[in-house]
Amino acid sequence: MLQSQETVVKVLVLGGDGFCGWPCAVNLAENGHDVVVVDNLSRRKIDLELGVESLTPIAGIGDRLEVWEQSGGRAMRFVSMDIAHDYDQLLGLLRSEQPGAVVHFAEQRAAPYSMKSSRNKRYTVDNNVNGTHNLLCAIVESGLDIHIVHLGTMGVYGYGSHRGATIPEGYLTVEVPQPDGTRFRENILHPTDPGSVYHMTKTLDQLLFFYYNKNDSIRITDLHQGIVWGTNTELTDRDPRLSNRFDYDGDYGTVLNRFLMQAAIGYPLSVHGTGGQTRAFIHIRDSVKCVQLAIENPPTSTDKVKIFNQMTESHRVKDLAEKVAAVTGAEINFLPNPRKEAIENDLIVDNRCLIDLGLKPTTLDDGLLAEVVDVARRFADRCDRRRIPCVSAWTQTQAKAVAAG
Amino acid sequence: MLQSQETVVKVLVLGGDGFCGWPCAVNLAENGHDVVVVDNLSRRKIDLELGVESLTPIAGIGDRLEVWEQSGGRAMRFVSMDIAHDYDQLLGLLRSEQPGAVVHFAEQRAAPYSMKSSRNKRYTVDNNVNGTHNLLCAIVESGLDIHIVHLGTMGVYGYGSHRGATIPEGYLTVEVPQPDGTRFRENILHPTDPGSVYHMTKTLDQLLFFYYNKNDSIRITDLHQGIVWGTNTELTDRDPRLSNRFDYDGDYGTVLNRFLMQAAIGYPLSVHGTGGQTRAFIHIRDSVKCVQLAIENPPTSTDKVKIFNQMTESHRVKDLAEKVAAVTGAEINFLPNPRKEAIENDLIVDNRCLIDLGLKPTTLDDGLLAEVVDVARRFADRCDRRRIPCVSAWTQTQAKAVAAG
Repeated sequence: MLQSQETVVKVLVLGGDGFCGWPCAVNLAENGHDVVVVDNLSRRKIDLELGVESLTPIAGIGDRLEVWEQSGGRAMRFVSMDIAHDYDQLLGLLRSEQPGAVVHFAEQRAAPYSMKSSRNKRYTVDNNVNGTHNLLCAIVESGLDIHIVHLGTMGVYGYGSHRGATIPEGYLTVEVPQPDGTRFRENILHPTDPGSVYHMTKTLDQLLFFYYNKNDSIRITDLHQGIVWGTNTELTDRDPRLSNRFDYDGDYGTVLNRFLMQAAIGYPLSVHGTGGQTRAFIHIRDSVKCVQLAIENPPTSTDKVKIFNQMTESHRVKDLAEKVAAVTGAEINFLPNPRKEAIENDLIVDNRCLIDLGLKPTTLDDGLLAEVVDVARRFADRCDRRRIPCVSAWTQTQAKAVAAG
Repeated sequence: MLQSQETVVKVLVLGGDGFCGWPCAVNLAENGHDVVVVDNLSRRKIDLELGVESLTPIAGIGDRLEVWEQSGGRAMRFVSMDIAHDYDQLLGLLRSEQPGAVVHFAEQRAAPYSMKSSRNKRYTVDNNVNGTHNLLCAIVESGLDIHIVHLGTMGVYGYGSHRGATIPEGYLTVEVPQPDGTRFRENILHPTDPGSVYHMTKTLDQLLFFYYNKNDSIRITDLHQGIVWGTNTELTDRDPRLSNRFDYDGDYGTVLNRFLMQAAIGYPLSVHGTGGQTRAFIHIRDSVKCVQLAIENPPTSTDKVKIFNQMTESHRVKDLAEKVAAVTGAEINFLPNPRKEAIENDLIVDNRCLIDLGLKPTTLDDGLLAEVVDVARRFADRCDRRRIPCVSAWTQTQAKAVAAG
């Protein structure tokens, strides 16, 4: 669906070479928007550092853009930039491109990677906080009216007990009891309870957004995304050189994709702890649609930060494993948990904002589980089994439990 | 009062050369603790950058320590270090010194300085967030059980209307209404509403502390300090070369000290806006006592972050100006407000924790206003009147109002 001329948005996609960023960029281009991909290729460099590769072979960003255009896609440009450290270059780019929107995926996004060592913790905080803050500063300094669409995480709310209550979209109405027996009502940013240094950086982002929205009227949509599963969209499936990455390793692989890959290669499904942890999920195809909906429905300059819960369903990890086992015949292996987290939790989430904007959820029951298993099976020979275990521990106690287990 | 051998604490004072850090360090030494001053001298470098000097002449850190020891003080050592960027050196220092406590003053602390330009905003965020995070990481990596005493700010709560309610010490009990008419009660970190990039960094610190306390059981006391006034304590008054700094400029001068200095040199007292802004205050003598009380009453390893409101009284800015005018005969000049803030607010603060630990507040009525005026008068010839106006504006709109006013 092409946009009419007035509704075409010039969009910078920061982190547009990554797992969510790449399919998001092509989806925006396909829908008529004018896209510039901005990336420092840090995700590919971390592959080198960890000694792993995407299960699916992925082309370089130059080839991706060339093939995309050759296959009939609207041309996109690429700018190599580290937004956390190249502030002047970022400001110059905003001034020369004058985008209507910036999608901000340019953060280190793996909780286990963020917990590996002090170096990883420090990199994650420095990169994510300075990246987000540089973007906000540069928009203020440019004087341009640019809408930021940021990829946050459902993890900002935490996975402690919400006592059966529904998690609202970003803001919580509370009553404050007073000594005289009265109470007053306030609508506050939902209290945060991050489960890793990575998740913590997204709670810091929230406060940066809150402040710059209040002081400088910056327009912001913060998408609190669930765990993404799936690999390709219709568009990245067009040509093998457009393929999206598929992470299966213990640091970057997300739980459902790991189960599907494990099933495909005959490796027991790794459930850490009881499997009673409940998490929110979204398919990559829905994720890219949500970003598009956010861009096409921006806040006004007097709106506070718009927060959407970008997820379509919640599942217990153990139930997911059983579902994958039922489809594939895989075995389930219960392992010690390297994370410090609640043994189990409930998770009821309000996601009406994106549904009301027109999102049609892709669910686990839509047959896509099998599709992902097929992808994993096709590239099974590229899997390095030594990279499957989760080796990042949250604390010394956790590390010992994993080593003993 | 010297400590018995068992209660002597080895303390690193990060930022121990600054306005609060220096009198805090000598007070801890005088009370029998074993003090190492750690500083990168950034505050002195910012003086050079801004082209200003402390109204009181201050000795170099080497001279300060030598004179302190010669005048009978317990010896303190000095380590030059940038904790935000010299992580390995910081970790090495913790390992070699094995302190029982670290007092963390090592942050850029002026709201107007943090708002001067993108460079200042970015420096403040990078320095404050990475400094605090490096300290937390290094303590975890060292495996040592070190108590952090952090200087936060009352500004984390914000100065919007609290509807006449008392601001509690860090945590707020709220009730969450449910659709079925029930409500559940929770004790949450008080919602934040920072008024500048500087204040925002202290709200980020809060989340860093919350996370590292939860995941790694780091023991932390966060002191939400009011605006500090006064200059010297009994100890820094011992010798002119021990004198504390006195900032009067538009960036680093705090409101009450500026009024007192303005009165001393016959400059009209600058009230920005209506003067209806209400703020919390504490004298420097009480500030150093509070830090000592925090160190001598540490949390246990199962405690959550202890948060104290480190202030002794609240006043409207206009009332303060009138009080100073009454004492000194100064005139009051109402100027446009360069800050984006509520025109006026109430501020009722719970500060029982420190009072219960034994703090005896020094109030404005204790005759110390005159003492500060005397200090300012003595060094009046060192004042550069061109540095008195507040020139940092919060937004373009504010900048125009100030320029027009």
